[in-house]
Amino acid sequence: MTSTPPLAGIVPYVPTPINASHVDAASVRRLVEHLLAEGVTGISPLGSTGEVMYLTPEQRLEMVQAVVAAVAGRVPVVVGVAAFSSEDVTAQIRRYEDAGADAFVVILQRYFPLTADEQYAFFASAAQATDAPIVVYSNPLLGADITADLAVRLSGIDNIRYLKDASGNTGRLYSVIGRVGSAMSVFAASAHVPALVFQIGGVGWMSGPACVAPRASVALYDSWKAGDLDRMWRIQRALWPLNELFGRYSAAAFIKFALNAQGFDVGEPCPPKGPLPPSVGERFSEVMRGIDEALAS
Amino acid sequence: MTSTPPLAGIVPYVPTPINASHVDAASVRRLVEHLLAEGVTGISPLGSTGEVMYLTPEQRLEMVQAVVAAVAGRVPVVVGVAAFSSEDVTAQIRRYEDAGADAFVVILQRYFPLTADEQYAFFASAAQATDAPIVVYSNPLLGADITADLAVRLSGIDNIRYLKDASGNTGRLYSVIGRVGSAMSVFAASAHVPALVFQIGGVGWMSGPACVAPRASVALYDSWKAGDLDRMWRIQRALWPLNELFGRYSAAAFIKFALNAQGFDVGEPCPPKGPLPPSVGERFSEVMRGIDEALAS
Amino acid sequence: MTSTPPLAGIVPYVPTPINASHVDAASVRRLVEHLLAEGVTGISPLGSTGEVMYLTPEQRLEMVQAVVAAVAGRVPVVVGVAAFSSEDVTAQIRRYEDAGADAFVVILQRYFPLTADEQYAFFASAAQATDAPIVVYSNPLLGADITADLAVRLSGIDNIRYLKDASGNTGRLYSVIGRVGSAMSVFAASAHVPALVFQIGGVGWMSGPACVAPRASVALYDSWKAGDLDRMWRIQRALWPLNELFGRYSAAAFIKFALNAQGFDVGEPCPPKGPLPPSVGERFSEVMRGIDEALAS
Amino acid sequence: MTSTPPLAGIVPYVPTPINASHVDAASVRRLVEHLLAEGVTGISPLGSTGEVMYLTPEQRLEMVQAVVAAVAGRVPVVVGVAAFSSEDVTAQIRRYEDAGADAFVVILQRYFPLTADEQYAFFASAAQATDAPIVVYSNPLLGADITADLAVRLSGIDNIRYLKDASGNTGRLYSVIGRVGSAMSVFAASAHVPALVFQIGGVGWMSGPACVAPRASVALYDSWKAGDLDRMWRIQRALWPLNELFGRYSAAAFIKFALNAQGFDVGEPCPPKGPLPPSVGERFSEVMRGIDEALAS
Repeated sequence: MTSTPPLAGIVPYVPTPINASHVDAASVRRLVEHLLAEGVTGISPLGSTGEVMYLTPEQRLEMVQAVVAAVAGRVPVVVGVAAFSSEDVTAQIRRYEDAGADAFVVILQRYFPLTADEQYAFFASAAQATDAPIVVYSNPLLGADITADLAVRLSGIDNIRYLKDASGNTGRLYSVIGRVGSAMSVFAASAHVPALVFQIGGVGWMSGPACVAPRASVALYDSWKAGDLDRMWRIQRALWPLNELFGRYSAAAFIKFALNAQGFDVGEPCPPKGPLPPSVGERFSEVMRGIDEALAS
Repeated sequence: MTSTPPLAGIVPYVPTPINASHVDAASVRRLVEHLLAEGVTGISPLGSTGEVMYLTPEQRLEMVQAVVAAVAGRVPVVVGVAAFSSEDVTAQIRRYEDAGADAFVVILQRYFPLTADEQYAFFASAAQATDAPIVVYSNPLLGADITADLAVRLSGIDNIRYLKDASGNTGRLYSVIGRVGSAMSVFAASAHVPALVFQIGGVGWMSGPACVAPRASVALYDSWKAGDLDRMWRIQRALWPLNELFGRYSAAAFIKFALNAQGFDVGEPCPPKGPLPPSVGERFSEVMRGIDEALAS
Repeated sequence: MTSTPPLAGIVPYVPTPINASHVDAASVRRLVEHLLAEGVTGISPLGSTGEVMYLTPEQRLEMVQAVVAAVAGRVPVVVGVAAFSSEDVTAQIRRYEDAGADAFVVILQRYFPLTADEQYAFFASAAQATDAPIVVYSNPLLGADITADLAVRLSGIDNIRYLKDASGNTGRLYSVIGRVGSAMSVFAASAHVPALVFQIGGVGWMSGPACVAPRASVALYDSWKAGDLDRMWRIQRALWPLNELFGRYSAAAFIKFALNAQGFDVGEPCPPKGPLPPSVGERFSEVMRGIDEALAS
Repeated sequence: MTSTPPLAGIVPYVPTPINASHVDAASVRRLVEHLLAEGVTGISPLGSTGEVMYLTPEQRLEMVQAVVAAVAGRVPVVVGVAAFSSEDVTAQIRRYEDAGADAFVVILQRYFPLTADEQYAFFASAAQATDAPIVVYSNPLLGADITADLAVRLSGIDNIRYLKDASGNTGRLYSVIGRVGSAMSVFAASAHVPALVFQIGGVGWMSGPACVAPRASVALYDSWKAGDLDRMWRIQRALWPLNELFGRYSAAAFIKFALNAQGFDVGEPCPPKGPLPPSVGERFSEVMRGIDEALAS
């Protein structure tokens, strides 16, 4: 049994600032402090937006340590764990838990096709490595699509308690929610309209846009909880163009562009991925102004 | 300018009952009478659920004639027009308009890739063939995905007034709605959760499930219009498993199975597609009981 | 039993010249006369390169009639039959056979997924409609991929005698050839290197490039049959860039561009597909010069 | 400049035998000794068949050390380097070169889409890390498809000297070979029919089947070099069903199954991938008997 409180609300994915091959802990601290001040309810390092696939084992661990130190227990640190093998997912979870992680978003990377039983075995290995809560990450673009049937099976494991779905197919999410009941809670991802996912039972939003516009993301969630649907939709309409920008560009390149533009100095994407051109800034500014106006209204 | 009233609400796709190579007009009449009695606000023959790709030009025309005769002007007849060439889409629209069609859902079939300009030209040809309103059909499975940019361009044509999106990606629909404004209205398709599409501005639901559960579909829409969200979600939750059945099986095979089970005698799918096995009936009955209970509650 | 001699060698796909909605029989006659003078061993109208999907039933029949009249029995006329339904494939085959077709290339178009049994049933229906030989067309781009298992089953039907594979995956073709034995012969398509397919047992080349460079295509095949592998490879190396042009552009747009450039006046692609820009001509001329040089050497 | 002799001929991918989280060097030694006795001209550890994606950095290094020790300079050791980032590919190459690797097969893993320039930059980084020859690995299944244009650009880098193409599309390989000239040599992979790739200029075969049937693979290549095409095709026909088995099952699961069946004790696939069922053995034995017969004839 774990003592982590239930995960819910706005959990931003944070980028990994790299400087001379090491994680820039000062940059992490500045960003985390800002996000907590804006009211987010969790911090998630090592997501795909955080370029987890592009980091060495050492860089991954440094990033967890930097986030844990910066958060200092104020909200749960929900660490992304991307792995191909059962052995690796187990080792990573133990390493990050030792470093202070509170929960894990587990991403099954694939090269060879896997049967449903083999996929189940991977997540079961992850669950056995810890008592902390696990978020299963479903992403058809990764070939890591979790079917409704598999989600139901996984929800029977004690500490597999959440699903994060990156598919953008809201109907599929509705099917999963209809079948897992209270055994598993669902988070919206960047591809989903969070205001819609809240209405079908989603408990929060784990996303890159929430890192770039944390105040609006928190206000979106809070207005939903308060039953103020008019305000929720005003904010959602203003926020959605930010999701569109994440979709148009590589998420990792865009989040670094956007946070640098906001003065957070998070560095550039890991090569060979190059930075976005300055011309993106104009549309980004326009979108952020729209968000500010919606918040003020 | 067209005198057709705006399309909205519940517009079921109807199957094409074939008997000895001809459309069974008596079967069409029984089904249409039932759907109108249940309150649907339009009838759509020759959708993909209606096996339009599998019908000869003669069978397509017979089906339009049968539906127009059965509807007798009580609601708009929104005819599906599937075509590869500009010449064919023009000819079909004229033929069906002469037969009494009120509006058209235009499906661009593709073999060779088309540029955005070529796609635009196809729909522009369709629009020029008639004054009646046109629904642009977007379907990534067909390779006939209408991008937000193309939707915006098409919304500038006077009688291109609706978009029907079959992608299941609600975020994309939200992007389109955000950009076309009042120039174009959006219908949900079977892959979408209609209760969600209504909330982002969708004007109705064109779908196969609406033909199998018309009363619940109408109640879903009416409860949305009446602002009774509790009732809307009760019905939506009960209806969604019907969409799942359409998704699990071929839509055309399932709709004929379901309507035959309801006593409408609509025949079997066009070979080589075979009928569904009787074993599907158990789950179907269970789903329909759930819908009845939600309606009664 | 059919009296058609075995199909083999170079069988060009021909484009469909349309003029004011009708097939331009004079254009067909000029092209066919040229191709026969160059030594081709069959003519194939209504292939996908011939824009079969874009033609009305009337235009398809006019094209068959025009080709049959032009060929006048000198080589087999191998007519493409693209259909979704068993009823339509049967009707088309009968119509074209009445018009004088000698053999059929059958293309299974798909909208809803089909089981292997349903695919088998479609081709079995086609085979029952005629005693003439049938070429099964396999094309993964169409979703009409014929597996090795299905090819073996189909080879058990008396007049299903050929497979034309458009996949470009030569290993898969080798697997099929290894399993069907003498019951079925295989033709290379444009995506394959015909000189390689000949070596694994292929009996000929049905393709668009063979229509644009018939003399070289015939020389390629003849040098293979004569065992002059040096000459075969000289020609193959020169011909391949023509296949690359077919791959880079839409096959139907390119074949019309190329034949117009050669003075055959075959018209433009069916709208909405537009014609290629004149700038394509430079590379095309260069490729054709290379082919001429290889033939002369 | 590198002193490695040109790579050519039969270079088997070898599996990675893991025992209690470490590479089983004794198993590696037995297998390598056998392969060298059969006449292979290189050994390639850490290919995708070698489960490179599933191994930790430590396991990868142990495998390189084990193979280098076992080969003892008799043939080149061509090490697979799978990486997402430019930094990681550079670090791995240096590490393996220090451990004695002679050449590298570089696999660009992708999560976010990359432009052609970004792909070029990745391989350029790899090339700068070493003077040893580099094989660029093209694999559309990985989303790591190297276009002909990119191959031509990469061939301009001094030590990028080979391309290994896993696509199965022989025509595309022919296009690349036609354009890179002598600046780059091409290896066939398991998906290709090597006897065909030799004829269009391929210099050898890097594959999993070559590890399971090394004697026949060497005989295939030698008969090609000796101009004995009849013998080459007898062997090729017998070998191809082995490729089909690699295609039907996961390559890594099948190679371990096959080598265990031959008595090499290479362990099981990395979990969550499970081992193949014993029932595969019957077809495998049949295929191996066919290969033995072809060799004896």
